[in-house]
Formats: sequence, C-alpha cells, structure tokens
Amino acid sequence: MRYRPASRTRDIAPFHVMELLARAQALEATGREIVHMEVGEPDFPTPEPVVRAANHALIDNKTFYTPALGLPELREAIAEFYHTRYGVTVPTQRIVVTAGASGALTLALACLAEPGREWVLTDPGYPCNRHFVRAFEGVPVGLPVGPESNFQPTPTHLDACWTSRTDGLIVATPANPTGTMLTHGELKALHAAVAARDGHLIVDEIYHGLTYENNAETALAVSDDLWVVQSFSKYFQMTGWRLGWLVVPEAYVRDIEKLAQNLFIAPSTPAQHAALAAFEPDTLAILEARREAFRHRRNFLMPALETLGFRVVARPQGAFYLYCDCSELAPDSFAFATRLLEEAGVAATPGLDFGTHCAAQHLRFAYTTDIPQLAIAIDRIRHFLQA
Amino acid sequence: MRYRPASRTRDIAPFHVMELLARAQALEATGREIVHMEVGEPDFPTPEPVVRAANHALIDNKTFYTPALGLPELREAIAEFYHTRYGVTVPTQRIVVTAGASGALTLALACLAEPGREWVLTDPGYPCNRHFVRAFEGVPVGLPVGPESNFQPTPTHLDACWTSRTDGLIVATPANPTGTMLTHGELKALHAAVAARDGHLIVDEIYHGLTYENNAETALAVSDDLWVVQSFSKYFQMTGWRLGWLVVPEAYVRDIEKLAQNLFIAPSTPAQHAALAAFEPDTLAILEARREAFRHRRNFLMPALETLGFRVVARPQGAFYLYCDCSELAPDSFAFATRLLEEAGVAATPGLDFGTHCAAQHLRFAYTTDIPQLAIAIDRIRHFLQA
Repeated sequence: MRYRPASRTRDIAPFHVMELLARAQALEATGREIVHMEVGEPDFPTPEPVVRAANHALIDNKTFYTPALGLPELREAIAEFYHTRYGVTVPTQRIVVTAGASGALTLALACLAEPGREWVLTDPGYPCNRHFVRAFEGVPVGLPVGPESNFQPTPTHLDACWTSRTDGLIVATPANPTGTMLTHGELKALHAAVAARDGHLIVDEIYHGLTYENNAETALAVSDDLWVVQSFSKYFQMTGWRLGWLVVPEAYVRDIEKLAQNLFIAPSTPAQHAALAAFEPDTLAILEARREAFRHRRNFLMPALETLGFRVVARPQGAFYLYCDCSELAPDSFAFATRLLEEAGVAATPGLDFGTHCAAQHLRFAYTTDIPQLAIAIDRIRHFLQA
Repeated sequence: MRYRPASRTRDIAPFHVMELLARAQALEATGREIVHMEVGEPDFPTPEPVVRAANHALIDNKTFYTPALGLPELREAIAEFYHTRYGVTVPTQRIVVTAGASGALTLALACLAEPGREWVLTDPGYPCNRHFVRAFEGVPVGLPVGPESNFQPTPTHLDACWTSRTDGLIVATPANPTGTMLTHGELKALHAAVAARDGHLIVDEIYHGLTYENNAETALAVSDDLWVVQSFSKYFQMTGWRLGWLVVPEAYVRDIEKLAQNLFIAPSTPAQHAALAAFEPDTLAILEARREAFRHRRNFLMPALETLGFRVVARPQGAFYLYCDCSELAPDSFAFATRLLEEAGVAATPGLDFGTHCAAQHLRFAYTTDIPQLAIAIDRIRHFLQA
C-alpha cells in the first residue's frame, strides 16, 4: 500500500524542542551536564497526599471505568474549588473530567470545530491549540500579538481579524509562552466582542494557581456562555497522570457526553481518585509553598537574563516561563538555542515552537529547575556570550 | 451565543445502554437487585502484581511525562510479548503506547481519515469505531454481516462495497458484539483484498487472550503493512487505567509521533509503570485462570439462553459476549431489554448499540459476572417469559 497519510498530517508540526531534547540526552549520555530550561513541566513530583490517595484507591481495587464525564465526587470537588477559590458558582453538571487539558481540547473542538471554519489563536501561543483545530478540520488563524497588548488579544484585534468564516477564539491566561494574563475586565470585553459575533470562546486556564502578582480570575465569573479548559498538571503537579477538566456551557453538556463516551470511554480512574486529594488543605499547603519557590525563581531569573542582554518582552505574571527577545544576541533563535545547548549546555525552547510571528527573535526559558541550576545556566550563558 | 455544535455531533450516537444503566441504578437505589450483563468490562479487578507495580512507581515519584510514544521499556516489553506469545517479530519502533484502544483509534484515524472518504466497518460492530471515523470527517460505511460469514467481512463483501471513494477497512477479531474471529488465512485474504485496492487496514485485537477455542493469531503475522489496535483493558483487566497500544506501519511512525505529541502529550505514566508488570509470569498466571473462568461462564450461559428460546447466532470464540437473536421472544430488542430490566431485573445491551443491521432482533449478553449471578439471571428470564 502506498504511504498515504491524511492531508491534515502535513499541517501538524512536531515539537521542535524535542529535537533539542534528544540532542541534550545524547550529550548527557557522553557525560555532559545539561541545565534543562526547555521543559514545560514542573520539576516537583506530585504532592505526597495525592500519591497516597492513589495508592489507597488502587489497593481498594478502584481500577474500573468511571462514568464518561468523570467521578461524580470529583466533579463536585471541582465545583467546590470554584466556590472557595474564586467565589464563583459552577453547576457540577457543567464540569467534565478529561484526560488532561489535551482531552478537554479534543472534546471542545470535536464538538465545535466545523470543517473549513476559522478559529483565532494568538501567535505566539501554545502550539497544540492550532493542531487541535486542524485535527477536526477547522482552520486555525494566527493572530500576531506582541508587547503592545501584553501578548493577549483585544476586541480591536477581533475587529481586524474576524470574518464571516470565523467561528471562535481561543485564549490562555496565564499564557504560554509569555505568562501574561487577562484581567476580569479584559476577559469581559473579549467575551462581549466574541458574543456580538455569535462566536465560541475557549479560555485556557491551565496555569491558574501559578501566578505571582495577582490571583487569576476565572472566565467563569464573566459568563456561563464560554468554555474553560483546566488541568491537574501544572499547579497540582500531576503531569504524568493526564487529568484535567472542561467547563462546558449547559446546552452542550449532552453533546460532550456523547463525544466523551465514544472518544475516551472515561478518564483515568486511578488519576481521578488521586485528584480527589488535590483540593485537601495538606495538598494546597504544599502547592502554595511550591508556588513561592516558582516566584523566587522568576525573581532570580528575570533580572539575570536581562543583565545578559535578553529582553523579557512581557512581564510574566504567571506560569513558569520567561519569553525573551534575543535578537540583540543572535539573528536566529533556533540556531542560537542549538549553540546554547552544544556550547553552553543550556537547553531552552526556540520561538518557532509557539508560532511564526517574530519566532526567530525569541527564546522561552522555563524556570522548572531550582535556583542553583538556574545560576549555573546564567554563568554558562555569560561565558558563552563573552567567548 | 446561539447553540451551534459542529455538524458531526448530530452523527455521534450516545451509548443507548447507558440509558438502561441509569434506569438500572435508579432501580437499585429503590432496593431492587439487578444482574448486570450489559457491561463490556471484566468484573475482575486489575491483577495484584500490576497494582503493586503502580504503587511502587508512585512511591518512586514516577509522576512525570514520558515520551509521547510511551516508555521505551514498555514498548520493548510489548515487542517481547509479540515474540513469546505469537512468535512474531515486531520492531519496538513501530509500537506506540496509547491512552487505551480509544487513544490508538484517535491516532490512527487522525493520521489516515481524509474528509469525505469512506471507511468500511462491520454492522454489527463496536459502535465507537464509526464515530472515530466521523470525528475526523471520514465517512463510515456499515457493512451488514451475519451468520453466513460468521459476522466478519470477506473479500467478496469488499468486491461489493468498495468504491472509488473508499480508503480503508476496520475489522475486529475477536469481534464485539459477536465474539467471532478471523483465522490467519482469512486475515491474509482480507489484507490482500485491501492492499489490491491500495487501502488501509486496521485490525482491532483488543480481545486477544480472551479466546476459548483456538488462540488468536495476530494480523502482524500477515503483513507489516497494516495497523493493529490493542488494549490493556480486557485480557489484562486494566480498564480504568486507560492504556493500550497501536502498531503502526513503519512509514507512518513519524506522523503518529507528531499527532501523539500534539493531541495527547503522552500516555499515563502510572498506568505505563503498572503495565510493565502485565507481562510477568505471576500476572499471566492470574490472567489465564480468569480466562478459564470466562470459558466456564460462556459454556454455562450459551446453552441456558438457548433453552430459553434465544438463538446464539454465531458461536463466540472469544471476548465475553453472547450475541443473541431474540426475535422469537419479542419483536423489538430495545423494548425487550427495557422489560427485562424493569420486570426481570436483568440488564442486557440492545442490538441498536452495535449498528442498525437487524438491530431490533438482537441482544448482547455479557458474561462479565459470575456463574451464580448468571444462574439468577437465567431463572429470572425464565419466569419473565412464562408470565
């Protein structure tokens, strides 16, 4: 049979950083020590009370399917979390437990993306978003954003890019790769602008909790008529468990249930039992201590990079990334990232992984490693730049 | 914003049995005891050595992402399993660990399904298959199959239903809902017929291991040029963990990796560490004892149902289902399933959940409960039919 993949595969980009990571691992195999600042994953393991809850559930034989929309008690715990943390009432019925934010995006876009219709996404932005749109035959339209709008979309942007072919907007707050956030007022204005066009609004809130200036406000406080993608990966540090959730406008719950039954059967049972402990006071105390650790890293790394000639283009209010303009140090960030790895032993993610808008002049540094490692990285980059 | 789901959602059917299950749970809440023969899930919990491996991995903080294609050592263990169980050499490189067979079907059809192009699937068959095709804008074409071909497709069927619009065939052996199997020769003939048409062949082998007459032969012994979907759910009894695998023709591995990175990031880490123990001798001994239990149940239930007037339309060689023609007992299997539940306290799955071909005259009984329960069910159905 001829090699004949579906046309969409031509539009699905690999994670370019994976090539760097493979090279980093090859260097490590030869004895080199690499500082990893390319990984979008907290370096902290899952908090012990969460692990303990999973261990107990497994010993109790909690290894069977749950309902497609998730364990009722976990959906209730998430609703309660919205109440206590944000003061927002979200009906349990609208909360769908998913196989990570990835599963949430699959369900949302399988439900909403119409073939040939456009979705607006920021460039730079989380690269998988445009691929979820493309997977379901929607057309992702990159909206170039920069420091002038804090790397976030505005109603004015929508005036310019929304056409009769556009169906929706995907935003993230805090955003990846910049860590910038949308205020309640900005979210409200964006929602109004999308609603006025009868479009869909999906808000990615997976970095909520990892904020260092103001607490994030959930888009669910703005309207019931939008979709929120959330995750147990980042703040709750459960990356490998693959668990998240999706908050769905009431009218779509039944469609999402049908899709979840057919595409997933159910989310992971051990992960769901583990996650029941994620909202316990003991766990939250651990998570808040780790948030402080991230804050210290950010406060150490940001001025250190700026001293070296990197320009942190938007003050990151959340997540664990610094998106830097490196154009005064090198003409092409991909080649620069390769040299940083080979010659300085520091791995960072080139802008190319987040879109095409000014990609060659940006690098993302993740502070998902501790301050001693960050200090080594800064020293190495300094020597490299002076060489 | 108007309620405006994507058109595909209109073609995604719910699991009809879920309505019966919800009703069964409502009856149980009033104190009724229901015999559950509707569930496509082994009643055995995950074997203890597998649970123990997960607990150890969690205590060792194995909670981070793995590579997108899965833990290298698990991919190797699966390759080794093909060698020892089937005597077939499968390059580790072609084995992709997935979030259940569901994840495997997502990846395969995201990679292969071209919008508007047709895929042939048996009717009756596992209902989600056609929805995976539809989700990626392919066109599922039901191929009516019956006892004359053991509910399996043949090259003659393909002569009749394959058109210039057809891109592929999905088969299952053992099949759901019938438990019928394809021999090596039949698989070879089907592969040749598909290859002659330059089509794709996907073979669902998720019930391998749960066979009661001959051991199943893997389609991988027939050709490298086909796709195999597998699961840790059924034989390995790890349903809730959501773990499976996909064997990919060499040429597509890179496309699948890009899709897996973007759509899933990675499969569940705790589940993968658990699964490393699935191929251990201790585990296999437990699984083989349970296979014997399933065999005894089948041998008890099949004649008992036949005595009551159900016609087991194809001798089930595997899986844990009996697909019965109930047309001599009732004109409509959905209404009959409802009455069996309400009046006899026995839950079974109506044919409607597996397609439309003769659906109203069939019911599927799962022997995923023990013989004492099956005996109660038979007694209850007997009394119901005599009433």
